[in-house]
Amino acid sequence: MAQATLVRPIGYVRSPYSETSQIPKGCGAQHEAEGVLELLSEYEQGLTDIDGFSHLFVLWLFDRVTGFDLLATPPTDTRQHGVFATRSPRRPNPIGLTVVRLLGKDGCRLRVSGIDMLDGTPILDIKPYLSSVPIDQVKRGWLAEAEARQVCGRRQ
Amino acid sequence: MAQATLVRPIGYVRSPYSETSQIPKGCGAQHEAEGVLELLSEYEQGLTDIDGFSHLFVLWLFDRVTGFDLLATPPTDTRQHGVFATRSPRRPNPIGLTVVRLLGKDGCRLRVSGIDMLDGTPILDIKPYLSSVPIDQVKRGWLAEAEARQVCGRRQ
Repeated sequence: MAQATLVRPIGYVRSPYSETSQIPKGCGAQHEAEGVLELLSEYEQGLTDIDGFSHLFVLWLFDRVTGFDLLATPPTDTRQHGVFATRSPRRPNPIGLTVVRLLGKDGCRLRVSGIDMLDGTPILDIKPYLSSVPIDQVKRGWLAEAEARQVCGRRQ
Repeated sequence: MAQATLVRPIGYVRSPYSETSQIPKGCGAQHEAEGVLELLSEYEQGLTDIDGFSHLFVLWLFDRVTGFDLLATPPTDTRQHGVFATRSPRRPNPIGLTVVRLLGKDGCRLRVSGIDMLDGTPILDIKPYLSSVPIDQVKRGWLAEAEARQVCGRRQ
């Protein structure tokens, strides 16, 4: 059985957002912002052939969050939900996950769109996005219910 | 700037696979195996309302891997690619990502399909799967090229 494990930044996000209040949140929030995934130069070789992929998973650290809550009230609802049923930053392991579109590569810098991280966010991993669950098979739980209650508008 | 961060298992995967050789790999590999995401009881409340979601992201540790390579030769190709353009387990931060389908919930146990982890794999996080990139917008880089070279069959 694994014990606690150390993870280390492989690079940092360059983002237009310096404060969380600037990041679009809630239902229908569009994440179109462009930014750069800037890897440490020692990892540049690990980006070989990444330019053929249209989309990437980015794993990153919520580095400006301390502690966690098992129940969270997301910006998309007025009710509490379990933290693992939300994208709350206050998680037992403060790891974020974002799908970005790859626009270009220049050495150890990837220009991407779909950024929803703060400037300076530590990157833990980048993986190719290979397949999608057909959207008509995706059930969105409390989020769909919140939309039905018109807590927020229908996601576009 | 963040320093190294400790992450800790929130639970463990119960999987039919005890050795990596048993896990389907390569092009067209289907991950239909059923298993259980068994959270530590202290995190059970964090699963509140998760049963409304059809699919989940699971973040987990490659706990039986030591070290990493910046270039990897995946089972789907005869050529090397950068580790961040592959799903190789030998990554700078040994974190895996799997999309599973949620079949049922019983206390702190989630029954799921789509398991590709070894039995006993430590779970770091669970997040709701909320949206998909339309598959006709996904470009799959070297993997599509390897298919075109008939290194392996077309993905189903």
